[in-house]
Amino acid sequence: MSEAHSACGHHTIAPRSGTAFTLDKGQFLVVTDPQGEQVADLLAFNRGDLDEVISSGRTLDYASRIYLTTGDPLYSNRSNVMLRIVEDTVGRHDFLLTPCSADTFRIIYGDAEPHRGCFGNLAAALEPFGIGPDRIPVAFNVFMNVTVDGHTGALKVEPPLSRAGDRIVFEAMQDLVIGLTACSALQSNNFAFKPIHYAVEASWPLRA
Amino acid sequence: MSEAHSACGHHTIAPRSGTAFTLDKGQFLVVTDPQGEQVADLLAFNRGDLDEVISSGRTLDYASRIYLTTGDPLYSNRSNVMLRIVEDTVGRHDFLLTPCSADTFRIIYGDAEPHRGCFGNLAAALEPFGIGPDRIPVAFNVFMNVTVDGHTGALKVEPPLSRAGDRIVFEAMQDLVIGLTACSALQSNNFAFKPIHYAVEASWPLRA
Repeated sequence: MSEAHSACGHHTIAPRSGTAFTLDKGQFLVVTDPQGEQVADLLAFNRGDLDEVISSGRTLDYASRIYLTTGDPLYSNRSNVMLRIVEDTVGRHDFLLTPCSADTFRIIYGDAEPHRGCFGNLAAALEPFGIGPDRIPVAFNVFMNVTVDGHTGALKVEPPLSRAGDRIVFEAMQDLVIGLTACSALQSNNFAFKPIHYAVEASWPLRA
Repeated sequence: MSEAHSACGHHTIAPRSGTAFTLDKGQFLVVTDPQGEQVADLLAFNRGDLDEVISSGRTLDYASRIYLTTGDPLYSNRSNVMLRIVEDTVGRHDFLLTPCSADTFRIIYGDAEPHRGCFGNLAAALEPFGIGPDRIPVAFNVFMNVTVDGHTGALKVEPPLSRAGDRIVFEAMQDLVIGLTACSALQSNNFAFKPIHYAVEASWPLRA
């Protein structure tokens, strides 16, 4: 299915930018990589109590797996399921690394005047919802391809496995505030910055 | 060096319990496994601004490695170095999984009346410092032996590699509040609950 079939139309997140929006319990969030090899950092907060937030540690612990895909729940810091992955045409996402930030570009890339990165984009987008930058945890890094060497523990950021039109679909298990970006880090996106598309749907799969 | 040589004496954390204390910039925290195969969950908060907290995602990102040891810095959510590992006789610790909790025991072990776990112990110990349970992130899990299958991404909690008397030493790079436990999860500690010792030292290595 291409984005054009979406019942509600899709939204475009421009390269190296981010946004935030509400997602109601029972709605579906479709995140699409329109050109391929582009990462999207995803955050989720319980809209009724913003101190409840997506948790990499809880999710990985309960899954006993670092690679999550169709059927896997994403847990909060309070061990409630916030989102569930209901479709995934890629099968490789990262839940180990925090959103790239000005500090990332300074420390890892050595940039003198660093971009604010996904962290800065998320902080700006979440601010109107009353969510401060210190509340931003490890994001679910959609389409991000981070490999782990089981022996040395070495982490490597590889080009995403996503091709043009690939998507992942989440069902909301709570009323949420979502933060979502088109990732700003060179290495994460095979050294090219592209947009991300997303759509909010009332049902999934879409009816013909 | 055994604990008996510590200039200031050591503290004992009883099995399945936890504590919190202050650690000043420049002081050294020595965490010892007195009997072997016992995990200790470690948290750190900036004492001057409790919203600054230890971050697995920042630390792993900058290290490009999931296994941390001597020389490695532990970063905060603001990308400042909070602690630095200055000695490590084990070389295997985990920074992927959150502190075990009543939910862990309910979800993973199926316990009907679950123990409050490291999470509950940390929350109780940190409460007098004004740190609430929602502020507890992924802990640095001292001596915890979590392996990752590089192909499947499967996580496995193996018996700790620590033997009686093994230790890890951290230098504080900020004035900190530290949370520390003797871990309460069966699998993490090779199915036996033991104490953890710690000491706060003004210098390291200790003078003879």
